[in-house]
Amino acid sequence: MSVDMTTVFTTTMAVRDYECDMQGVVNNAVYQHYLEHARHEFLKSRGLDFAKLTEDGIIVVVVRAELDYRRSLRSGDAFTISVTTKHESRLRLTFVQQIVHARTGAIIMDARIITTAVSAAGKPCFPEELAALL
Amino acid sequence: MSVDMTTVFTTTMAVRDYECDMQGVVNNAVYQHYLEHARHEFLKSRGLDFAKLTEDGIIVVVVRAELDYRRSLRSGDAFTISVTTKHESRLRLTFVQQIVHARTGAIIMDARIITTAVSAAGKPCFPEELAALL
Amino acid sequence: MSVDMTTVFTTTMAVRDYECDMQGVVNNAVYQHYLEHARHEFLKSRGLDFAKLTEDGIIVVVVRAELDYRRSLRSGDAFTISVTTKHESRLRLTFVQQIVHARTGAIIMDARIITTAVSAAGKPCFPEELAALL
Amino acid sequence: MSVDMTTVFTTTMAVRDYECDMQGVVNNAVYQHYLEHARHEFLKSRGLDFAKLTEDGIIVVVVRAELDYRRSLRSGDAFTISVTTKHESRLRLTFVQQIVHARTGAIIMDARIITTAVSAAGKPCFPEELAALL
Repeated sequence: MSVDMTTVFTTTMAVRDYECDMQGVVNNAVYQHYLEHARHEFLKSRGLDFAKLTEDGIIVVVVRAELDYRRSLRSGDAFTISVTTKHESRLRLTFVQQIVHARTGAIIMDARIITTAVSAAGKPCFPEELAALL
Repeated sequence: MSVDMTTVFTTTMAVRDYECDMQGVVNNAVYQHYLEHARHEFLKSRGLDFAKLTEDGIIVVVVRAELDYRRSLRSGDAFTISVTTKHESRLRLTFVQQIVHARTGAIIMDARIITTAVSAAGKPCFPEELAALL
Repeated sequence: MSVDMTTVFTTTMAVRDYECDMQGVVNNAVYQHYLEHARHEFLKSRGLDFAKLTEDGIIVVVVRAELDYRRSLRSGDAFTISVTTKHESRLRLTFVQQIVHARTGAIIMDARIITTAVSAAGKPCFPEELAALL
Repeated sequence: MSVDMTTVFTTTMAVRDYECDMQGVVNNAVYQHYLEHARHEFLKSRGLDFAKLTEDGIIVVVVRAELDYRRSLRSGDAFTISVTTKHESRLRLTFVQQIVHARTGAIIMDARIITTAVSAAGKPCFPEELAALL
């Protein structure tokens, strides 16, 4: 639906050589760095800063990550990462993300990153800052 | 069952400070490094070497990762990672892994890493080396 | 001199949150990643591709790194990295690099990265590809 | 001299596959992680904890790193890192470190890491905790 489409955030990055491992492709763990960076850029586009949230005692934590590796990225590949949000449950916010090869359009990864927040007092919470992302 | 128990491999590691991020806890992506390292140590315990497999043209790839983050690891924490295998489907091998805090016994992460193999010719395959892990 | 000025290559990057450690600043080792990435971008601007060089059996190796840390980079900081080359000795090429904070102009790091090359046969060499960088 | 010998701290580590890059060797930046980890282990052996120092507002920073890369480490290689300290100047402490291949005894890297400390108020300082390392 067009209403949902307006919530899609995308950012473009490119593989750096040090991110490739001895198989010559981007190491599996590095994709989580890409996804995290795209989420934090998404937050910034909405006026939120992850570093500042942390300083303010709002600790956003990942509780589950589902990563479907479709194809590999290689040295120099440019790619886009899309980010949308979904209300998973009362205290959980899911980021639905996809990595797409910029030139070929091939899907590289589908990911669902389920998060929650913890207050400075260590209590689970769902701060209005996160609610505003939905 | 005792038969299954014999397939459990465990290795112990400790958090290094550079693996912690500005929240003061181990960064989410780093857990995939821990899990990968434990899988490769498991392969070695079975006489397989990931680097050598790669050189021999057997490319083992992760097709899906399901990571349940239960608790965070912090600077200096020691932890054990267990590895068991499961035949997911004809061409897929799943590594079931758990990270446990060494001192407290708290579960840090449950993970399912679903893999397949690709031959030097780029064809999906299930080499006898992997079959022997089951 | 203006002749030298033409050899200055610069590229701009920004800190990603996962690159910061528990001190809240970019981890010391990450700067080497930044420097390496800038060198490889410099090579590309000159028609050379590090990944392809490696595939072709020309292994460019760092023999010494001198890194002067002037100031720290923090979450979100944009910065530029400059790259110039210097003929260190018959078989050695030095990359003189500087990281500068984009907004303030503050010098973050001065670096000298001394490299040499090794042929596929394992012999030290100074291939014409590198000579062309001078 | 025997007096100096008592100040030598050593720790043993092994290369993890994800630390190797597409040249099949440990990436240059990773050695700084190794060196940092060894320094922090050294601090612990002397009753100091880097994470706690940071929390207490004593920020130890690297001001210069000199890294001589002698040989490369590869997948699975075990190695030892030695750490000694040297009073560089009134406010500077140098860590002299060497990485040695465990099996062959080959020197992999010589490093000099020059550090200083900054107080919570942002002033250069040389806390007694560091002085005690000399």
